[in-house]
Amino acid sequence: MPPHPLGPGAAVVAFDVGGTDTKSALFAGDGTMLGLTRTPTPLAGAETPSAVLALAAEITARYAREFPAVAPRAAGIIVPGLVDDENGIGVFAANLGWRDAPFRDLGVELLGLPVAFGHDVRGAGEAEFRLGAARGTQDAAVLVIGTGLAGAFFVDGRPHIAGGYAGEIGHSIVADGPDCSCGGRGHLEAIASAGAIARRYAERSGTPAEGARAVLQRAQAGDPLAQAVWDEAVHALALGIAQVITIIAPEVVVLGGGLAQAGPALFEPLEAALDGMLTFHRRPRIVAAQIGENAGLIGAALRARDLVQTEHTA
Amino acid sequence: MPPHPLGPGAAVVAFDVGGTDTKSALFAGDGTMLGLTRTPTPLAGAETPSAVLALAAEITARYAREFPAVAPRAAGIIVPGLVDDENGIGVFAANLGWRDAPFRDLGVELLGLPVAFGHDVRGAGEAEFRLGAARGTQDAAVLVIGTGLAGAFFVDGRPHIAGGYAGEIGHSIVADGPDCSCGGRGHLEAIASAGAIARRYAERSGTPAEGARAVLQRAQAGDPLAQAVWDEAVHALALGIAQVITIIAPEVVVLGGGLAQAGPALFEPLEAALDGMLTFHRRPRIVAAQIGENAGLIGAALRARDLVQTEHTA
Repeated sequence: MPPHPLGPGAAVVAFDVGGTDTKSALFAGDGTMLGLTRTPTPLAGAETPSAVLALAAEITARYAREFPAVAPRAAGIIVPGLVDDENGIGVFAANLGWRDAPFRDLGVELLGLPVAFGHDVRGAGEAEFRLGAARGTQDAAVLVIGTGLAGAFFVDGRPHIAGGYAGEIGHSIVADGPDCSCGGRGHLEAIASAGAIARRYAERSGTPAEGARAVLQRAQAGDPLAQAVWDEAVHALALGIAQVITIIAPEVVVLGGGLAQAGPALFEPLEAALDGMLTFHRRPRIVAAQIGENAGLIGAALRARDLVQTEHTA
Repeated sequence: MPPHPLGPGAAVVAFDVGGTDTKSALFAGDGTMLGLTRTPTPLAGAETPSAVLALAAEITARYAREFPAVAPRAAGIIVPGLVDDENGIGVFAANLGWRDAPFRDLGVELLGLPVAFGHDVRGAGEAEFRLGAARGTQDAAVLVIGTGLAGAFFVDGRPHIAGGYAGEIGHSIVADGPDCSCGGRGHLEAIASAGAIARRYAERSGTPAEGARAVLQRAQAGDPLAQAVWDEAVHALALGIAQVITIIAPEVVVLGGGLAQAGPALFEPLEAALDGMLTFHRRPRIVAAQIGENAGLIGAALRARDLVQTEHTA
């Protein structure tokens, strides 16, 4: 990651709320990231949104003491689950316990700052779209493949949100099975996420694997079960990407998250599988994410800066 | 279809160029459709675009004689194949023999009118989106299911084009086979188009069917082969629609073309199949097209009117 990926703009504070930890950082006017912190996400059932935002306010106050020269003019907050970015609502998050939580309005109240609120994968996707591997395109898909698998789609230069329901490519059907945690069957996430790869190998071999990387290493060492699990994941991912290509025809598909770090072991068979699936379709570039593990924070900072920009223009 | 679906606006002339016939009509200022004509499309290899536009100019001159009180201020022309609406280019049409044909510029020259040029399915889709079954939505999918199967997608209130490559849902993979005319395998069009339904029944039964409607009638009369072909088409269509739902999450999916006229025999099992596929996804309404068989012409007229509007505003 370049030292100042954001470049110059307003100082802002950013929060990337996860199921386990919440990451936060202060971004200075020159784009420098300061005070990067990871704090356990306060889980409090239906009160989780208030608890998360109280934590954000506390961290913002701490930044004010630690970096008195950097006064944030807005906050960017991103969360997982179903998120209505446009209305600032956390619609639903199974692990975090909220439903229809008015994050943006509550955030404005508790932080005393304008708040940009959005979906975590769309936030990370926006960092790739504006500053990273999809920069310069109008139509792009960013897939984040880790424990789960989700996408952020950009259409005609803008994020596609559809009330929070767009981008659920992880829950598209690519096979007859297995069962997915959402209650569906044969979903991409249940075959091709890093979590699924480790789980499926463990189920078939009876040997736990410490993650998708370990499964890949076993495959490369000649373990046929590991190779089969890996191949099925790559084939499913190619099918999912082919669906995206036929429907929205992106110029580029960016793969981020832990699985993308497999490099050629992922990208080469994936391109070969797409060779067998595409005919006249517009073939997008398939590339690795560039922004790195803080893409979510940087996306949240971008959105917070947009807010300052908009207020200036309005 | 209501008598004046377009409503008041500029008088325009519209052409819907098909592989066999070209339909044309003159639309008066009050939206009335005049002089609806069907003419064989002049096929002349690489010269087809010039021949088609010369025909359009001839028909426009005839309208001037027949309807002297209605002076069109722009022309709308839609064609099949891969079409770059934004740049006015017919990128590729296998049946019609052109590649990178500058339809819009050539049309302006031959017709002496501003020309709006676009894709036939997106044209018909736009009529449904602005005047028909998808009216009032921001995110919509219109699938036209006839000899082939193609889609027009509307995202955040605007048609999604992607250089002409968006909407090729007919060539999305939904099964392991059969072969598709495009060279791919298991594509939706090869299973669920009206053409595929008739062809697959004939192949399996050894008895020609006069179309998808005839296959449905045989199924309803108890023919198990016809029922299987129909059921497979419905299942494939549900899978394709589920893909669209997970990726772009439309509020409504409009089904047009000949197959949609099957009514409840299509829509009821389709909804049931979707019941088994969707979990937390946003469930769109699945509805029949409303504009009817002239949706393409009406869409072309809408685009021609947009052009007059734009010239006024500019």
